Amino acid sequence: MIRFECDYTEGAHERIMQQLLKTNEEQTPGYSMDEHCEKARAYIRKACHAENADIHFLVGGTQTNTTIIASILRPHQGAVAAVTGHIAVHETGAIEATGHKVLTLPSDDGKILAEQVKEFYDAHWNDVNHEHMVQPGLVYISHPTENGTTYSKLELEALSKVCRECGLPLVIDGARLGYGLAAKDSELSLADIARLCDVFYIGGTKIGALFGEAVVIINDALKKDFRYFIKQNGGMLAKGRLLGIQFETLFEDGLYYKISKHAVDMAMMIREVFAEKGFSFRYDSTTNQQFPILPNDVLIKLSEKYSYSFWEKVGDTHSAVRFCTSWATKKENVEMLIKDIEAL
Amino acid sequence: MIRFECDYTEGAHERIMQQLLKTNEEQTPGYSMDEHCEKARAYIRKACHAENADIHFLVGGTQTNTTIIASILRPHQGAVAAVTGHIAVHETGAIEATGHKVLTLPSDDGKILAEQVKEFYDAHWNDVNHEHMVQPGLVYISHPTENGTTYSKLELEALSKVCRECGLPLVIDGARLGYGLAAKDSELSLADIARLCDVFYIGGTKIGALFGEAVVIINDALKKDFRYFIKQNGGMLAKGRLLGIQFETLFEDGLYYKISKHAVDMAMMIREVFAEKGFSFRYDSTTNQQFPILPNDVLIKLSEKYSYSFWEKVGDTHSAVRFCTSWATKKENVEMLIKDIEAL
Amino acid sequence: MIRFECDYTEGAHERIMQQLLKTNEEQTPGYSMDEHCEKARAYIRKACHAENADIHFLVGGTQTNTTIIASILRPHQGAVAAVTGHIAVHETGAIEATGHKVLTLPSDDGKILAEQVKEFYDAHWNDVNHEHMVQPGLVYISHPTENGTTYSKLELEALSKVCRECGLPLVIDGARLGYGLAAKDSELSLADIARLCDVFYIGGTKIGALFGEAVVIINDALKKDFRYFIKQNGGMLAKGRLLGIQFETLFEDGLYYKISKHAVDMAMMIREVFAEKGFSFRYDSTTNQQFPILPNDVLIKLSEKYSYSFWEKVGDTHSAVRFCTSWATKKENVEMLIKDIEAL
Amino acid sequence: MIRFECDYTEGAHERIMQQLLKTNEEQTPGYSMDEHCEKARAYIRKACHAENADIHFLVGGTQTNTTIIASILRPHQGAVAAVTGHIAVHETGAIEATGHKVLTLPSDDGKILAEQVKEFYDAHWNDVNHEHMVQPGLVYISHPTENGTTYSKLELEALSKVCRECGLPLVIDGARLGYGLAAKDSELSLADIARLCDVFYIGGTKIGALFGEAVVIINDALKKDFRYFIKQNGGMLAKGRLLGIQFETLFEDGLYYKISKHAVDMAMMIREVFAEKGFSFRYDSTTNQQFPILPNDVLIKLSEKYSYSFWEKVGDTHSAVRFCTSWATKKENVEMLIKDIEAL
Repeated sequence: MIRFECDYTEGAHERIMQQLLKTNEEQTPGYSMDEHCEKARAYIRKACHAENADIHFLVGGTQTNTTIIASILRPHQGAVAAVTGHIAVHETGAIEATGHKVLTLPSDDGKILAEQVKEFYDAHWNDVNHEHMVQPGLVYISHPTENGTTYSKLELEALSKVCRECGLPLVIDGARLGYGLAAKDSELSLADIARLCDVFYIGGTKIGALFGEAVVIINDALKKDFRYFIKQNGGMLAKGRLLGIQFETLFEDGLYYKISKHAVDMAMMIREVFAEKGFSFRYDSTTNQQFPILPNDVLIKLSEKYSYSFWEKVGDTHSAVRFCTSWATKKENVEMLIKDIEAL
Repeated sequence: MIRFECDYTEGAHERIMQQLLKTNEEQTPGYSMDEHCEKARAYIRKACHAENADIHFLVGGTQTNTTIIASILRPHQGAVAAVTGHIAVHETGAIEATGHKVLTLPSDDGKILAEQVKEFYDAHWNDVNHEHMVQPGLVYISHPTENGTTYSKLELEALSKVCRECGLPLVIDGARLGYGLAAKDSELSLADIARLCDVFYIGGTKIGALFGEAVVIINDALKKDFRYFIKQNGGMLAKGRLLGIQFETLFEDGLYYKISKHAVDMAMMIREVFAEKGFSFRYDSTTNQQFPILPNDVLIKLSEKYSYSFWEKVGDTHSAVRFCTSWATKKENVEMLIKDIEAL
Repeated sequence: MIRFECDYTEGAHERIMQQLLKTNEEQTPGYSMDEHCEKARAYIRKACHAENADIHFLVGGTQTNTTIIASILRPHQGAVAAVTGHIAVHETGAIEATGHKVLTLPSDDGKILAEQVKEFYDAHWNDVNHEHMVQPGLVYISHPTENGTTYSKLELEALSKVCRECGLPLVIDGARLGYGLAAKDSELSLADIARLCDVFYIGGTKIGALFGEAVVIINDALKKDFRYFIKQNGGMLAKGRLLGIQFETLFEDGLYYKISKHAVDMAMMIREVFAEKGFSFRYDSTTNQQFPILPNDVLIKLSEKYSYSFWEKVGDTHSAVRFCTSWATKKENVEMLIKDIEAL
Repeated sequence: MIRFECDYTEGAHERIMQQLLKTNEEQTPGYSMDEHCEKARAYIRKACHAENADIHFLVGGTQTNTTIIASILRPHQGAVAAVTGHIAVHETGAIEATGHKVLTLPSDDGKILAEQVKEFYDAHWNDVNHEHMVQPGLVYISHPTENGTTYSKLELEALSKVCRECGLPLVIDGARLGYGLAAKDSELSLADIARLCDVFYIGGTKIGALFGEAVVIINDALKKDFRYFIKQNGGMLAKGRLLGIQFETLFEDGLYYKISKHAVDMAMMIREVFAEKGFSFRYDSTTNQQFPILPNDVLIKLSEKYSYSFWEKVGDTHSAVRFCTSWATKKENVEMLIKDIEAL
C-alpha cells in the first residue's frame, strides 16, 4: 500500500533523526528551558522578522489550538471560525471542553473573509440580547485551510484590519503552514503572517518533524503566563529539548521551506494528471492536499494500490477524495500513481 | 406602554401571591426538603401519570437546561439541538461552559425531526474519524419551540423512538410547556410528554409563577445524584419552599392549564386580527407567541403604545416581530390592540 | 418545632411581601433592566459611598460566588480561601466546575490574615516550578465567616493592602453581611467594606428577602461584561424586578440594618444564657450564629422542641452545634429557649 | 554540570533510538492504529497478565492523569489524592480545568492508606449536607510516590479492597512505575498492580523513552470511548506509531525492567554514601529518587559540579534536596559523586 491518505504517515526528516541521535546523551534541563529550544526560538524569530515574539513549543495541533484559545478568551467569549474549521469539527470538542463555543461562519472553501467577520461582529453587538449570546472573542483561521486553499495577501490584510478594528485577536492555525507558504500562488511570507496576526503556529508534525508545533505570539498582551497554559493543557513536554532540536533543524538553514516545496511539487504533479484526465476538483487547492472528484469504480481500482481519504459523496456515482503529499513523499511513488491514473 | 414583548412582564398569579403571603411565617427546612415541595411533587407526578418520576425545582430556564444537560452527558458528548434552540443561541454559552458542544441541526420553524436525528447519528458513527468529533449524547427540543410551533403526537413519537433506538436521552425544554399543551391543535398531554421523553421540565416563570421550573426525570438511569448537580449549578434555592408553594398552587386544581389557555386565547385573537388585515406570519404558531410580518411604518406606529420584540428583517420595508401574551395578559389590552390594528 | 438550625427558615420581611404584592401587576422589562432595580442600585451605591460602583442582582450565594470568581480569574489561576470557606467546602465544587482550583489556607476560626496571603503568594512566585502550579488569582473571604467571626478594621485593612500589593482582587462573600455589620464589636461600615475590597455582595436571602444577593463591583477593571457572566451562570432572573423590589425595600430607609440588628440581639441573648450556664463555644462569634459546645444528652433534650445544626463532635460526650437567629426570629421563641436552657 | 535534578535529562535508550531510525520511512496509519502499537499492546497485556485490558498510549503524565480522571468522574465528583499528589500540586490545575476538585488527604510520605479513604468516604456520606459537597469519585495514588516511597502489597491490597467496597475506581499514576517495581523491597509485580487497580499507566518518559505513557484499563466499565477522551485532551499523537515503537522496544524482552533496575541500583549507591556520612533523609525512599537532608554549605559546594532539586528547608542551616537517577545515569558519574561526598 502506498499511502496518500494524510501527511503524517512517516517518521521525521533524516536530518532531524540524525540530530536527535547526535544529541541523545546530552543532559539538559526539562520543559523547553534548554539551549536547543533557545536556538530554535532565535531562528524562528528571525524567520518571522519578529524579534520580540514569544516562541513556545507544543506537541500536537489540537493541543496547540486549545492552549492558544484558552489563553485568550474570557469565559463568555467564543472563537469565530469557518464551519469547516478544525476546531469546529475535528477536535472532539476540545475547545468546548475549555468552556468556549466555536462560533461558526459559513464557508465553502474553508476560508472566512473580512466582511463575514465584520458582519458577525456587528450583528452581535447590535442585538439587544447580546448579553444572552456568546461574545465573539477571537478569530481563528487555518492557512492553508483544511481544504488546501490559501488566503491571498489582500484577503489576509483585510481580515487582519477588521480583527484589529473589532479588538478580536487573529489566530492562525499553521499546522500545514509550510505547504501554504510554498504554494505556487502564495503571496505571503512568514513575516507577513507574523505581521498580520496576533498568534500563529508553525506546524512541524506534518512537515518534517516527528511531532511539534511552534507557537509564535506577536501581540504583547497575549504573552503573559502562557507557559502555565501549556502545562495545564498537557503540552509541557518533560524532554522539551526534543521540540527544540527538531525546530532548530528545520529552521537553521531553510530545511522547512525546502521540504514544504517538495510536497507541493509532488501535489501539483498529481493535480495535473487528474486535470488532464478531465476530472474536476472539490476545492481549488494549490497546496499539498488535492481533492479530485472521481468515479467510485475508479476509486475502488486505485485503492488496491494506494490509500487516500474519503471526503464526501458527489451524487451517486462519484466521490470527492483527498490525496495528500508531504515532505516524505517519494517521487517514484507519485510517478507510479500518475502512470496508473493515465492508464485508467 | 402596554407590553407584549415577552411573557414575563408581570409578577405572579394572584393565587400564588396569596399563598406566598399566607405561608410566609412558616418555618421550614431549606433546599426544597419541605412539605410544600413534597405536595407539589405529588401533584406533578399525578398530572404526568408518572408515579416514579423524580421531581426537582430550579429557578430559571438557562440554569435548568444547563443542570439537566451537564448531568447526562459525558465530556466527549454534545447535545443535539435545532440551530435556533435556546441552548444553541440564547444562553451565553452556558452549555459550552460545562464543557459540551451543542450539535446543531438545521430548522426553519424551531423543530427537529426524527429523520434528522437519525441521519446525524448515523453520519457520526459511520465517519471513520468519529473519535475526532463530538459524539451525540442527547437530543434537546423545546415544546413549544422558540418560534411558538409545536410537535404533533406523531412527530414526538417518531423522535422518541429514534432517540431510544440510538440510546440518546430525549430532553424537553418546557419553559412554555403549558402554552404548548393549551394550543388548539395540541395532541399532547402532560402524560404523553412524560411517556415520550427521558427528562423534561414544566415552566413556571413564564406561566403564573414569580420564577421556577419543575424538572421531571422519567428515566431511572438519569436520576442519580441530581441534587448535587442542582447545587453545583447554583440552582439549590435556600428557601426552596418558595418553589414548592408556587407549583403546589399551579397544580393542585389545574390552575396551570387554565391560565395557559387564557394566554393562548388572547394570542389567537391577536393572530386573527393580523390575519384578517392580510398580514402574513414568520412562523405558524398556535401558541402564545405570534410572529406577524409587518410594514416598518406600521411597527413604528404601534410602538407608540405597545411593546413587542423585533425578530428579523423581511426585505427592506417589513420586519417580523413577536407579540407575546401570557397568563397575565388583560383582555382589555388585547381588545385595544385589536382596535388599533383594525384601524391601521 | 422551633427552628434555629439556619437563617433561612421563613419567607421574607412583611414589608417586602407587601411591596411584591403592590407591584405585582406592573409591567416591566425583564432581566433587571427595570426601574425598581435602578432605584435599588442607587440606594446601595449611596449606602456604600461608592457612586461609581456597578451593582448587579443575583439569586443565591453559590451562584454569586461562582459568577464573581469566574469573571475575575484566568484559567490557570485559583481563588485563595480559608480551608473552611464556603467555596472550598459547601458548593459541590461549583468553583472547580468553572475550571478553577480553590487554594486553601489553614484557619481555625474561618478567617485568613494578611500575612498568610503574603506568605502563600511569595511561596508561589519563589518556587522554581511555579508554572506547574495554580497561580493565586484572587482572595476570597466571608464577612462574617462561616463561623460567625468577623474581621476587625485593622485586619481587613491589612488584608486589603497585601491584596493590592500582590495584584490579587479581594472578594468578600457577604451572604450574612448585615449580621457582621450589626455585631456589637463591629468596626466596619458598608463604606469600609466597599473601600477595602474589589468586589463584594450584600446578602438578601438570609437577611429579609425571599432570595437575592446584590453584587457591588468597586474595581473598574472587573466591571466589563459582568452581565454576560450572570447569564452564563444561570443568574439572570427573567423577572429581575423581583430582586430590585426586594433590595429597594431593604435599602430605602435602613430596613436592612434594623433587621440585622434584631437577629444579632437575639443571638446575644442565646449566647449569654449558654455562657451563664457555663458552656463554652466552638467559635467566638459576635453575630447571628452561635456555636455552643453542649453535652449530647442536653442536645437530645433540646431537640424535642428546637432544631439546630450539628457542627462537630467534641470528645465522646459533647458536640459543637449551631443556633442561628435571623431577621425573622421571634423574641418569644428565644425567651422560651432561654427558659428551657436555664432549666437544664 | 552532571545532572541529578530529575529523571528526564537525556533522550531515549539507544535501542529505542535505533528502532525509531529503522522504522522511520515506514508508512503507517496515524493515531496509534498501526502495527507497532498493536504489538506493544500485546506485550503489555502479557506483562500485566491482563489479556482483556485496553491499552492506550499518551504523550505525557499530566495529560494522562487528566484524560483518565476526566473519563471516569461525573461533574459533581472529585479525585481523592494525597495532599502531595502530582494532580494536587504540580499540574497547574489541569484536573480542576476539567471541572473536578482534587479532594486531598493528609500524607507525610506521599502515600494514602485504606483507612484514610474509608474514613473520608464515610464522612462524606454521613454528612447531612453531602449534596453540598464534592462527592468522592475515584482514588488516585502514585506508585512509587512523588517522594520515592512505595506501597507494600498489604497496603495496596487493603486500599484496593476499600475502593471496591466504596465503588471508587482506583487509579495508579505509574510515571515512575518501573522504578517502583525494581525497588529492593518491592513486593508488587506488574500483574499485582493490574489486579488491584482499575486503571493505571506505565511511564515511559522517565524510563527509557523519549516520551510516552501506556494507559492500562482493567475495569471494563471504564473502557468505553476512551479514544475520544485522548483526542479531546490533546493526547492523540498523529504519528502514534512513535509511541508504539517505543513501548514495543521497552516490553518485547524486558528492557523496561532492566533499565529500571539500573536506576535503582545507582540510587542505592548514592543513598548509601549519604547514610554513611551520617546524613538523614526526608523520605525513606527505596527507588530512584533520594532525598538527603544536607547542610546548606555542602549543597553550595556540590552545586558547583552537580545539579539536584531543592525540596524544602529544614531549619536554618539544612535543606532537603532530591537526587534522581534514571535509566540513563552513568555509573562513572555516580562514582564521581560518591567520591565527592566522601571527601566532604
